[in-house]
Amino acid sequence: MTEGNRVVTLARRPVGMVEPDDFSIEDAPLPEPGEGEFRVKVSHVSLDPAMRGWISEGRSYVPPVKIGAVMRSFSVGVVDASNHPDYGPGDAVTGLFGVQHYAVSDGTRVAKVDMSQAPPERWIGGLGMPGTTAYFGLLEIGKPKESETVVVSAASGAVGSIVGQIAKIKGCRAVGIAGGPEKCRAVVDELGFDACVDYKAGNLAGDLRAACPDGIDIFYENVGGEIFDAALAQMNLFGRIPVCGMISLYNATEPQPGPYNMRSILVNRLTVRGFIVFDFIDRYAEAIAQLGTWNAEGRLKMREDVREGGVEAFPEVLSLLYTGGNNGKLVLKL
Amino acid sequence: MTEGNRVVTLARRPVGMVEPDDFSIEDAPLPEPGEGEFRVKVSHVSLDPAMRGWISEGRSYVPPVKIGAVMRSFSVGVVDASNHPDYGPGDAVTGLFGVQHYAVSDGTRVAKVDMSQAPPERWIGGLGMPGTTAYFGLLEIGKPKESETVVVSAASGAVGSIVGQIAKIKGCRAVGIAGGPEKCRAVVDELGFDACVDYKAGNLAGDLRAACPDGIDIFYENVGGEIFDAALAQMNLFGRIPVCGMISLYNATEPQPGPYNMRSILVNRLTVRGFIVFDFIDRYAEAIAQLGTWNAEGRLKMREDVREGGVEAFPEVLSLLYTGGNNGKLVLKL
Repeated sequence: MTEGNRVVTLARRPVGMVEPDDFSIEDAPLPEPGEGEFRVKVSHVSLDPAMRGWISEGRSYVPPVKIGAVMRSFSVGVVDASNHPDYGPGDAVTGLFGVQHYAVSDGTRVAKVDMSQAPPERWIGGLGMPGTTAYFGLLEIGKPKESETVVVSAASGAVGSIVGQIAKIKGCRAVGIAGGPEKCRAVVDELGFDACVDYKAGNLAGDLRAACPDGIDIFYENVGGEIFDAALAQMNLFGRIPVCGMISLYNATEPQPGPYNMRSILVNRLTVRGFIVFDFIDRYAEAIAQLGTWNAEGRLKMREDVREGGVEAFPEVLSLLYTGGNNGKLVLKL
Repeated sequence: MTEGNRVVTLARRPVGMVEPDDFSIEDAPLPEPGEGEFRVKVSHVSLDPAMRGWISEGRSYVPPVKIGAVMRSFSVGVVDASNHPDYGPGDAVTGLFGVQHYAVSDGTRVAKVDMSQAPPERWIGGLGMPGTTAYFGLLEIGKPKESETVVVSAASGAVGSIVGQIAKIKGCRAVGIAGGPEKCRAVVDELGFDACVDYKAGNLAGDLRAACPDGIDIFYENVGGEIFDAALAQMNLFGRIPVCGMISLYNATEPQPGPYNMRSILVNRLTVRGFIVFDFIDRYAEAIAQLGTWNAEGRLKMREDVREGGVEAFPEVLSLLYTGGNNGKLVLKL
């Protein structure tokens, strides 16, 4: 027996911080797969900082979600009906299935996953977009060399937690920046970073300097704003700054000034490079295989923060990302 | 018959805009070359935006000029006495000889030049540091591809004028940014840029958009501040920003906020990379040979703005750089 579908749609474009009323939660008929399509029963939905960009009107790297359309998301689930030659009932898959219980897909940007190797939430976390984002940003743009100092902002988050651990695997000093003593403790004690600076403690520049006595060679940027500025001021000659996110700017309604320490780019001959993980799409399989190996060897811990509550809980759980309320990769279990 | 020396020394560190009283002009004994040294009679002194950094206390890419020391400069002149095996009287040379009539050198960072090939001022201009800075910044960091749009700020200056012309040689659309209709006209009519935007006309963003209908692929940055911000907002996907200078910040006494459009780095996956020409020191000969060939073929015009007046005129002539008063590579003839 199958029920109907239940979906989260975009009701209006948010101004500033995302509000629950920006979304609408609706019943919908169970979608039927057409020729060359299959249906997925979604079990877990990924909540990502990039979502704020997807629902803004402004120019971004993907077209915005349309008003009234199902909210875009990475999700994981199991095929329950198929007219597609490569996917059959019981196949576990990840893809852009949206925030809904059932999705229909033609296989575009879908990957089969092995649930015996890792739990479902991990395939949208450390072995999904956040993990591969950490992998390519650090290794391809940061190009870490042994004994260099790598600083990562949002260090307890989905991407940052992986960045610091890969830095350790590569023989670097890994320093996190996170909000609050509890997160900082977890970053050091559970994830094995060498140090973690609490940006809420009110002494960011001084604490960062103390944690990075040899300066910063790579600053992996997830946050923007004051944290970017503080890191810029302490970069070493020929430092690299992979820019993965600027979450501090996403909910801003007024234009935000950039860093005061821009001159560091010139004086220290820095390379600042923005990227998104899709830029490396040809090499996903390599990244996921390597991340899976490190995870299986126990060298790379992946932390998920799985919230229950079905699609109804989506707006509330999403807001945790922008208030720093999550601890690890944020996932909504349907 | 030889006279004594006359030198410009640094009297105090400037606060904000450079003032004439920041320098002292003094008589000094004629310096005598020791073992392994030679003496140069300096004929032309280069005035460069980087000088503002050299006399500041703050951390920069070279140690600051000490109070009481001869002001650092690139200069060109002729050897008039030598105890050095490789340099003899009559040899024309360039090097960091300082703002003075006579300098003694051991040959470090000195290059012999051929005055029959180009006039002396060109060896500290288009065939010197500014020319090689344009060459490496555009070609090695900008990596121009045919039919791309290259925008350069301070387009009528020593570096900018060469950047745009090399962009044309490489088949790109070259767009300058300069101050005032007269400079803009010269950039288009004399240097052959496709367009030039007058940032003083009060409509920078709109005029830049009109001049770059296909967006900006490479923004060669000499200025910083609002001009950087306007360019950031119009960068194309995977654009490159070689950061050569940020002259708008050099005389600032208060911290200056960075660009409001930082998010463009992420959304458009830009590469922003600071550099100085010394980073490419191993390849100077290649650059100067190529620049010289283009110049001899008439494909690369080099404009010098040679001011007379001896070392006494140095402080006044230097200030032209920061007020936009020069037109082409600024040189002081002794």
